[in-house]
Amino acid sequence: MLDVCLLGTGGMMPLPYRWLTSLMVRCNGRAILTDCGEGTQIAMKKKGWSPNPIDVILFTHYHADHISGLPGMLLSMGNADRTEPVLLVGPKGLEKVVDSLRVIAPELPFGLQYRELNENEETFDLPGDSGLHITAFHVNHRVNCYGYSFRLDRAGRFDAERAKAQGIPLACWNPLQKGQTVTAGGRTFTPDMVMGPPRRGLKVTYTTDSRPTPSIVKYASGADLFICEGMYGEEDKLDKAKDKKHMTFAEAAGLAARANPQPKEMWLTHFSPSENHPDSYIKDTQKIFPRVTCGWDGRSKTLRFADE
Amino acid sequence: MLDVCLLGTGGMMPLPYRWLTSLMVRCNGRAILTDCGEGTQIAMKKKGWSPNPIDVILFTHYHADHISGLPGMLLSMGNADRTEPVLLVGPKGLEKVVDSLRVIAPELPFGLQYRELNENEETFDLPGDSGLHITAFHVNHRVNCYGYSFRLDRAGRFDAERAKAQGIPLACWNPLQKGQTVTAGGRTFTPDMVMGPPRRGLKVTYTTDSRPTPSIVKYASGADLFICEGMYGEEDKLDKAKDKKHMTFAEAAGLAARANPQPKEMWLTHFSPSENHPDSYIKDTQKIFPRVTCGWDGRSKTLRFADE
Repeated sequence: MLDVCLLGTGGMMPLPYRWLTSLMVRCNGRAILTDCGEGTQIAMKKKGWSPNPIDVILFTHYHADHISGLPGMLLSMGNADRTEPVLLVGPKGLEKVVDSLRVIAPELPFGLQYRELNENEETFDLPGDSGLHITAFHVNHRVNCYGYSFRLDRAGRFDAERAKAQGIPLACWNPLQKGQTVTAGGRTFTPDMVMGPPRRGLKVTYTTDSRPTPSIVKYASGADLFICEGMYGEEDKLDKAKDKKHMTFAEAAGLAARANPQPKEMWLTHFSPSENHPDSYIKDTQKIFPRVTCGWDGRSKTLRFADE
Repeated sequence: MLDVCLLGTGGMMPLPYRWLTSLMVRCNGRAILTDCGEGTQIAMKKKGWSPNPIDVILFTHYHADHISGLPGMLLSMGNADRTEPVLLVGPKGLEKVVDSLRVIAPELPFGLQYRELNENEETFDLPGDSGLHITAFHVNHRVNCYGYSFRLDRAGRFDAERAKAQGIPLACWNPLQKGQTVTAGGRTFTPDMVMGPPRRGLKVTYTTDSRPTPSIVKYASGADLFICEGMYGEEDKLDKAKDKKHMTFAEAAGLAARANPQPKEMWLTHFSPSENHPDSYIKDTQKIFPRVTCGWDGRSKTLRFADE
């Protein structure tokens, strides 16, 4: 199960009615935050969530609307008694940018770990045994920028009949289901002895601040939820979108339409402050990709495995 | 006339229902912001104000809840087409702190000027001819911290009879009223020839993040409005207040009570996140100083000269 929440849906500057774009992904009681602009910690408190369980903060890039809330967030995590280290991930320069911002948050009761992205694609796992893999993929903005795809694995089905037939003791079943190798009564049992082939898991892909790219199409493919920037609803803002290296709604929807297999669902986010009613353009956008809707602040979805 | 607005009244961290403590003082269409924590620019937009006219930003100190909103505010000022320089004022280290934070706001369409405070008291005028004088006074917090007192001068009354009696041409009256020396028909006229003694102006004093100090009593004296931190309402939090170098409501009210002359009105601000209902302590606080009330986000007051 993956819990996904768009904490905010604004681009460029925070507005009284629209927080800056930020994504919270929660899995097994832990949380991964993507981007942290000014006010993100307030948006999170509005949902009633403590900042304590955030194990990882991913940054798409270092424009202020995606990172200006970091010092306050780190301090609030400290005030919420966080002591375990926090992993920060982002394009090259991460540690330098964070060090600079920490001029106003020099003392924290937890350590910071850094993973700077250097390749076009990099995959890494969440600390711990969550089964959640994160892939960072390079996109095309005015500065070095990445999208993120979250993949939650699902093991194959446990075959009790096979386990019984092989005389595997009952006490070994649970660790085997968890993928662990077990030794009992002088015999060693491995998961492949009782587990079917891995089943389809869950996939969420998130990208903002980019022109359309093949990398986005690749990671939108087969996603249960594809969240993508849509800076401008009006088609006549295409030149502006190109100039500022953003996308129109139509361009974003085109990415989902070209993905194979297409994503099950798509949300738009990172609306320009000039877009007071992003919803007014969505019908036209749905002609390009029917399962696209506008994100809104606090929009959440719980994604479950297919037959759960 | 001075327009005063408490944009937020929270201390330590921004909450969904309470922005971080920040003061806006407006005078003749220009604005002075004191402190700029995370979300201050949103609180300002809620009032419907553009960040463009902010000529001066004063900082009490550099704890994150008083400055973390600066990079976003500067960028928003740029987006609002600000091109005139902005004066930043604060304790020693100002330029270094601002430079560090500007790692995410490196390019601005206006210049920044710095005034670092080194003395226990420093008075300076707003750029331009506003008649507004600002005094920074040292207070007592865990780090170097200042309060600010705003004084708007008021010229004496213009005596038309004296002007006529001295044969001063009508065209000279207005510049003389403005305090200018004028030459006409070979004669030189000075303001003292037609103006009475200066009249009582307006005074607003603002201080937050401090233990009680004689300097605060001094600048609270004779204020039309005295705005002071009150971190804790409960008297049994006195030890905590001492430890964290803040004040209880009672301590804050005691400062106003000791001022001579006492301030006309007092607002409390910078409430601890643990204080959900600061108003519930105000009756007891008014036993110490009757004209004290709690500030709230967006609380405004227009101060006018006595007989205007």
